[in-house]
Amino acid sequence: MISRDDALALDRADPLAAWRDEFVISDPGLIYLDGNSLGRTPKRTVDALHRVVDQWAGDLITSWWEHDWLNLALTVGDELAPLLGASSGEVAVHESTTVGIFQQVNVALDLAPGRRVIAIDDADFPTDRYVVEGIARTRDCAVRRGLDDLDGVDVVLRSLVDYRTAEVADIAGETARAAAAGATTVWDLSHAAGVLELDLPDAGVELAVGCTYKYLNGGPGAPAFVFVSEAIQDRLTQPIWGWFAQADQFAMERPFTPRPGVGRMLNGTPPVLGLTAAREGIALSAAAGIDRIANKARALTGFAIDLTDQLGLDTSTPRDPTRRGGHVAVHHHDARALHTALAERRVIVDYRDPDVLRVGLSPLTTSFADVLDAFAVLAELVVDA
Amino acid sequence: MISRDDALALDRADPLAAWRDEFVISDPGLIYLDGNSLGRTPKRTVDALHRVVDQWAGDLITSWWEHDWLNLALTVGDELAPLLGASSGEVAVHESTTVGIFQQVNVALDLAPGRRVIAIDDADFPTDRYVVEGIARTRDCAVRRGLDDLDGVDVVLRSLVDYRTAEVADIAGETARAAAAGATTVWDLSHAAGVLELDLPDAGVELAVGCTYKYLNGGPGAPAFVFVSEAIQDRLTQPIWGWFAQADQFAMERPFTPRPGVGRMLNGTPPVLGLTAAREGIALSAAAGIDRIANKARALTGFAIDLTDQLGLDTSTPRDPTRRGGHVAVHHHDARALHTALAERRVIVDYRDPDVLRVGLSPLTTSFADVLDAFAVLAELVVDA
Repeated sequence: MISRDDALALDRADPLAAWRDEFVISDPGLIYLDGNSLGRTPKRTVDALHRVVDQWAGDLITSWWEHDWLNLALTVGDELAPLLGASSGEVAVHESTTVGIFQQVNVALDLAPGRRVIAIDDADFPTDRYVVEGIARTRDCAVRRGLDDLDGVDVVLRSLVDYRTAEVADIAGETARAAAAGATTVWDLSHAAGVLELDLPDAGVELAVGCTYKYLNGGPGAPAFVFVSEAIQDRLTQPIWGWFAQADQFAMERPFTPRPGVGRMLNGTPPVLGLTAAREGIALSAAAGIDRIANKARALTGFAIDLTDQLGLDTSTPRDPTRRGGHVAVHHHDARALHTALAERRVIVDYRDPDVLRVGLSPLTTSFADVLDAFAVLAELVVDA
Repeated sequence: MISRDDALALDRADPLAAWRDEFVISDPGLIYLDGNSLGRTPKRTVDALHRVVDQWAGDLITSWWEHDWLNLALTVGDELAPLLGASSGEVAVHESTTVGIFQQVNVALDLAPGRRVIAIDDADFPTDRYVVEGIARTRDCAVRRGLDDLDGVDVVLRSLVDYRTAEVADIAGETARAAAAGATTVWDLSHAAGVLELDLPDAGVELAVGCTYKYLNGGPGAPAFVFVSEAIQDRLTQPIWGWFAQADQFAMERPFTPRPGVGRMLNGTPPVLGLTAAREGIALSAAAGIDRIANKARALTGFAIDLTDQLGLDTSTPRDPTRRGGHVAVHHHDARALHTALAERRVIVDYRDPDVLRVGLSPLTTSFADVLDAFAVLAELVVDA
């Protein structure tokens, strides 16, 4: 039997334990295991939002230059880049993840003439599937469902971490398999960024997109990021042309000439408040160290899987710690009711149809004691169920 | 000669004068005549941002339901609707203006089969022209430059208020002229929303887009709005399909079925921080009354035109008060240097190539004394120039 002392010992040995103090914990009695949906609020974000509102009120329009808001989407991208193994100039932060996916799939289609077949797994996250359907409706292209056979496929869109099981795809192997078939893969890193140690260039990734409000604690509806490998930047065209992507932004009379680098992925005026919050969340993860965060994710998920086993419940999350992200899928026929009952007992997890409790274990804000206490409540509820 | 006493008398008679107290004025010595680029900071926005960060920190993921963040893009749209003469359910607030234009032009193209010619004025705002060029590159369609001849045109994209001269187009007449040629007009209201009294349904407008960070004081990079006439909502398809536009958002396994109403224009997770700020700015304008705001805009711009005349400078802004927006274009061959010299004297206006000082007169935050004092400084500088 795993005991609470075991959890406390793991917390004492956790090199990241003190980082929890960097976050606003309004209710210490709440066990929050849904940081993979919406990360907690960094204290420094509260301060940064005060500062940016003071800049807006005090320096008004000149803030765009004085506080370099004009480049904020790229500055924040540069600060995120190391967490992806990327270089400065390969990442931009802007718009929603949906818009980012739309841009990247179109970019991939336009990388070579005649591309028209997009492949996606039918089990991928809905927005990814919807975006691809929408593109196929507007452009002359077709959607292939399933990734087993990539023959004749031009573009693959896929999530690195399965949003239900947390299974991690073989990013290098699958990028190479697609490339061998002549296809470019757009990786959706929404459930991976800020919890897995990534090296996109080393994995041969050319295009990726992801969100910053999960493990990166960027705030509700925080802007998304797009990654474009430096090697292909200057030959790509994205579909939504706006003045922030124009080489000479304030030259009002010229035709559109995309700026060099990842800046050509920008669209309109960047969301300064949202970007300011995203920046602080990203900075926290960068300062804590993505290697240590990834290590703790493996330990926390392993601990949760052990507790799931002890409870006699099934999990679809891989037991190989290198093959899973930062959450654990616990299956129970009564999962929906358990989700509600857990919330009434002050344990917040996520529920997914038809039978999954998704237990999110955001490393900077989750302790081993949290996990143990949550499973203790779940054990009581399962007995009653 | 117009005197400072004249200005003070106008301020005493101004029914909106007290609304300036609703804004953070960090530096009372600064004359800010650029609220048409970035509006000032409402005090209530500062409070609202504190509240929403408390919600995020305290209620975490459950905020999406408890504080109805899930519907925030439509709630804020409903609050903006009266300022456009629109009804509840016709406006959504989300993403950047560039993305909104991209969506609306695609929507207009898809309203009937075979549409492929988009017309735009070569002098329109750059982002509008860029978006159209980008669409023409990806889809099978063509761009017609100029709006005089609409024969064979399917979609017209145009700004209601010229961003340089402030000239207002005849919205009803031009919408009807396009319709007579078989074309749908997408109106860009960026320089109109929050300063002109609009009645989009009465003018026969079906599609519009605009920004909230100018006269609506929504904050830097605040999300844009899209308007879709109720009459056409259920037969439109927009190009970027995301889970917030899906009829049953949390049904993960279904194909994309757009939700009814303007909600089908949504894409991904809405930017809660930016929307919260936009909401407060919009609410201030709604409370002050758009009729009174529009009246004051006509008076302020008229006053600025009189001062321009008195200074012996030219303006390209219409002298008919019903034909101009909320700014005045003052021409001078040395405008760029004057713009800098004005800023050194603590007067902030905008500069546009090649010879325009754009004097923005946001009604809720600009006094007649501000205008008089700014022109007094300009007069000294012009004599020296």
